Amino acid sequence: MGKDKGPTFTLKTPKGTKDWSGSDAILRDRIFTTISNVFKRHGGTALDTPVFELREILAGKYGEDSKLIYDLQDQGGEICSLRYDLTVPFARWLAMNPEVRSIKRYHIAKVYRRDQPAVSKGRMREFYQCDFDIAGAFDPMVPDAEVMRIVSEVFEELGWGGRYTVKINHRKILDGVFQVCGVPEDKIRPISSAVDKLDKMPWADVRKEMVDDKGLDGAAADLIETYVMNKGGRELLDKLLQDERLTANASAKAGLEDMALLMDYLEAFNVLDKISFDMSLARGLDYYTGVIYEVVTEGSAPAVQADTAEAEKLKKSSKKSKSKNGDDEDRSDDPTLGVGSVAAGGRYDNLVGMFQPKAQIPCVGISFGVDRIFSITKARLEREQNAKPLRKSEVDVLVMAFGGKGFTGMLKERMEICQKLWSAGIKAEFSYKAKPKPQQQFKAAEDGGIPFGIIIGEDELAAGKVKIKEMGLDKDHPEKEGVDVELANLIPEVQARLAKKQDGSVISLSQQLQDVQV
Amino acid sequence: MGKDKGPTFTLKTPKGTKDWSGSDAILRDRIFTTISNVFKRHGGTALDTPVFELREILAGKYGEDSKLIYDLQDQGGEICSLRYDLTVPFARWLAMNPEVRSIKRYHIAKVYRRDQPAVSKGRMREFYQCDFDIAGAFDPMVPDAEVMRIVSEVFEELGWGGRYTVKINHRKILDGVFQVCGVPEDKIRPISSAVDKLDKMPWADVRKEMVDDKGLDGAAADLIETYVMNKGGRELLDKLLQDERLTANASAKAGLEDMALLMDYLEAFNVLDKISFDMSLARGLDYYTGVIYEVVTEGSAPAVQADTAEAEKLKKSSKKSKSKNGDDEDRSDDPTLGVGSVAAGGRYDNLVGMFQPKAQIPCVGISFGVDRIFSITKARLEREQNAKPLRKSEVDVLVMAFGGKGFTGMLKERMEICQKLWSAGIKAEFSYKAKPKPQQQFKAAEDGGIPFGIIIGEDELAAGKVKIKEMGLDKDHPEKEGVDVELANLIPEVQARLAKKQDGSVISLSQQLQDVQV
Repeated sequence: MGKDKGPTFTLKTPKGTKDWSGSDAILRDRIFTTISNVFKRHGGTALDTPVFELREILAGKYGEDSKLIYDLQDQGGEICSLRYDLTVPFARWLAMNPEVRSIKRYHIAKVYRRDQPAVSKGRMREFYQCDFDIAGAFDPMVPDAEVMRIVSEVFEELGWGGRYTVKINHRKILDGVFQVCGVPEDKIRPISSAVDKLDKMPWADVRKEMVDDKGLDGAAADLIETYVMNKGGRELLDKLLQDERLTANASAKAGLEDMALLMDYLEAFNVLDKISFDMSLARGLDYYTGVIYEVVTEGSAPAVQADTAEAEKLKKSSKKSKSKNGDDEDRSDDPTLGVGSVAAGGRYDNLVGMFQPKAQIPCVGISFGVDRIFSITKARLEREQNAKPLRKSEVDVLVMAFGGKGFTGMLKERMEICQKLWSAGIKAEFSYKAKPKPQQQFKAAEDGGIPFGIIIGEDELAAGKVKIKEMGLDKDHPEKEGVDVELANLIPEVQARLAKKQDGSVISLSQQLQDVQV
Repeated sequence: MGKDKGPTFTLKTPKGTKDWSGSDAILRDRIFTTISNVFKRHGGTALDTPVFELREILAGKYGEDSKLIYDLQDQGGEICSLRYDLTVPFARWLAMNPEVRSIKRYHIAKVYRRDQPAVSKGRMREFYQCDFDIAGAFDPMVPDAEVMRIVSEVFEELGWGGRYTVKINHRKILDGVFQVCGVPEDKIRPISSAVDKLDKMPWADVRKEMVDDKGLDGAAADLIETYVMNKGGRELLDKLLQDERLTANASAKAGLEDMALLMDYLEAFNVLDKISFDMSLARGLDYYTGVIYEVVTEGSAPAVQADTAEAEKLKKSSKKSKSKNGDDEDRSDDPTLGVGSVAAGGRYDNLVGMFQPKAQIPCVGISFGVDRIFSITKARLEREQNAKPLRKSEVDVLVMAFGGKGFTGMLKERMEICQKLWSAGIKAEFSYKAKPKPQQQFKAAEDGGIPFGIIIGEDELAAGKVKIKEMGLDKDHPEKEGVDVELANLIPEVQARLAKKQDGSVISLSQQLQDVQV
């Protein structure tokens, strides 16, 4: 690279990845904190695994999606790949640590998929997942119910109250339904994945796929329709429990009994009203063995159901990102892709045994798609008229110096005041200029949304006094020009004002979003 | 992979990587929080960059260490590599975002080096760095001094007070010294890297390397000795400022003036006593252009200076890890390798310009080696006699049920109580067994170090009462058997007790470590 010429390559992040900075990084961090506080409240402990695994660990876990796995180059030594999710590394860890017979673990980390990115919909090649899983052999449906409760606490505390639905179903009920409807054993998975498309396609199209593409008998398809189009609550369960054809099937019966138990427990956890028993929910991954769930919100509905203005906006931003990213093949115009679910999971009782049959441990868990949660939360905050813009930093005090002719800038004096503030744990800054102008210092406080200024002057400081000024007060506020305090009392005076101040950076997301209309 | 047989490969993490779980993960998380709180206190804002970069971005930045970069396999599309540090991605981000003319940014994330791992010394292929950098054109040494203050706050708050030293030097002083001593221009970098070994080798060996291997004139080497063997504080600076040979050299003069300014500012920041002006400090990376620094602690001294018991222990654990990890070539027996510094950094004014000459921005920063900080902190906590073992989770309350003959287990009742606690933000668990035995429940509370139990019984609950029991009280404590409270008052009763409780998980690391002897 020539020293005088610019680089000959494009300065960018790799396709499907991005940098996070400023208020976006702060908002995402608050979402992480909100979610991990819920995880800790339920006894979750952190597990951190390497970003790459031996390739053999990932092999045979993701079906045809395995082609999306990123491989590391063979530079001699072991053959490795970037992790595709956080579930398989967790199962590998459980198999490697047979002394751990039960655990509630959470893991917030990036995962990697060589998918075609649809950047405008938050579909990236590098993205965060926030996972919580409960491993261990327990009485049926107890941990499953706690996972549902966790889902509800997370979205309530994110300020989504009333705007999300947890769709649940049970693999054993689905399998039973397919058996009862006469689906041959070898067609159950393909038919199941056709059913899973019912949130994006009308029944007629799904039926067509079943009959024309997958060779299912038309009568069987029609019988399936009478089951999978149902959604509801306990009344749907009661109806199914009276369906003698269904209860005569061992798989369906076991699934329905689980579901009855689950609803009892969800009632005790006070979250039954958040749940929709949705018989069309099938979930793609093969490893689920019991209850499955997916969280949807208005903002995550697929484009086909979205209002036209929103769809138009998505289209525009898609075109914009296409031209900006060059070769990116953005699929966001594809009507089969919505923002998708914002969280999903289920019970997987056999995955750990794939690594170590002797260490078989049943598991149930949930994965929050935090990048999608971020996009929706950010859009809601921006739509809120009265929402304060998120600050880019958390600084509470700017230490400034003013003076007349012959003013030295008082750099060391500003440093000494900052040092006192930092030692008391107060977030503070000063201008790095030796002689900053008053306007520059006020502008810095304004730009940073810094709530307080401490103003020092040579005469005042010699008399042991400094001024505390709350920024942004009305021009007729009695303290508009600031308040003189004794230097010796500076710290408690600042602390008292900070405690009183309603600070946008500390109120919870749920408070901030409680009045926001979707 | 056969379903009935175990996998045919070894169940392990890739060489040089590890899982973090349990109390280790909690301790590391507390270190991250301590460090990032200091960063935020100084106005730092988070930046998150992708784990891989276009290979061209990393090319030509790391000299011969470039061979340690992990490459992603070419699966079509862009050619990428895992990041080697957090500094080059930061410089790339600054070059890509020319509207950002100044920023204080922090980044806590993993970096990747295909080095030979020395696991027992914490030298890994995947490890965390915690970086803080200040970018922007400011008055000289002002941000540099704030970085030193940040270093001091971090180690004070980690509880290392009095046990760390910040070695500082200046590239311009070093270059000036070499010029004054008659080192030819093309030998300055190799001679500089020989000097950098003075913390691991005696002068005689370094001199030998200079003269025999690098062809330096013996007299020049002897003159270098009179400078680089010096370390001290302001008195050393004053001595050098009176050295006319040195002050006649433009580079040395500029460096010494910077250093004088820096010491003034460090005094204002009240951290001058933490600093050792060490003329042998040279730092490997080519991109430093001004002040450079490295933080050392007793625990990070190289093996050659360490006491014999410690060295013996290191050797043993090295052998152990060798046999355990199979092919791992553990270099911890190598006397040239110490645990090394626990933080290091400096000023690099030209790196951003390597990406975008028009966007040239001077920078200064520090990188904390958090895995090494973790190892030393953990060893200190373990040596402390009175230190409570770190808990594996943060749960505060276990909800239990006891009963006599015909006891149902009260599962739903336990769930309802937990639901109330969670809704109040209290960290709580219950047994997932339908009918848990009393001993099992007590053991769970004990194993988890859970400070409080809430005990429910059928008769008591019918009368609207539950028992709160503080775990681990002396057998003659009046509340040993617990206290009955009204169910309606349960939440405030629990909150009041939690507020009073000295909880090991919330006291700061510095409190926990303040009396620990090294």
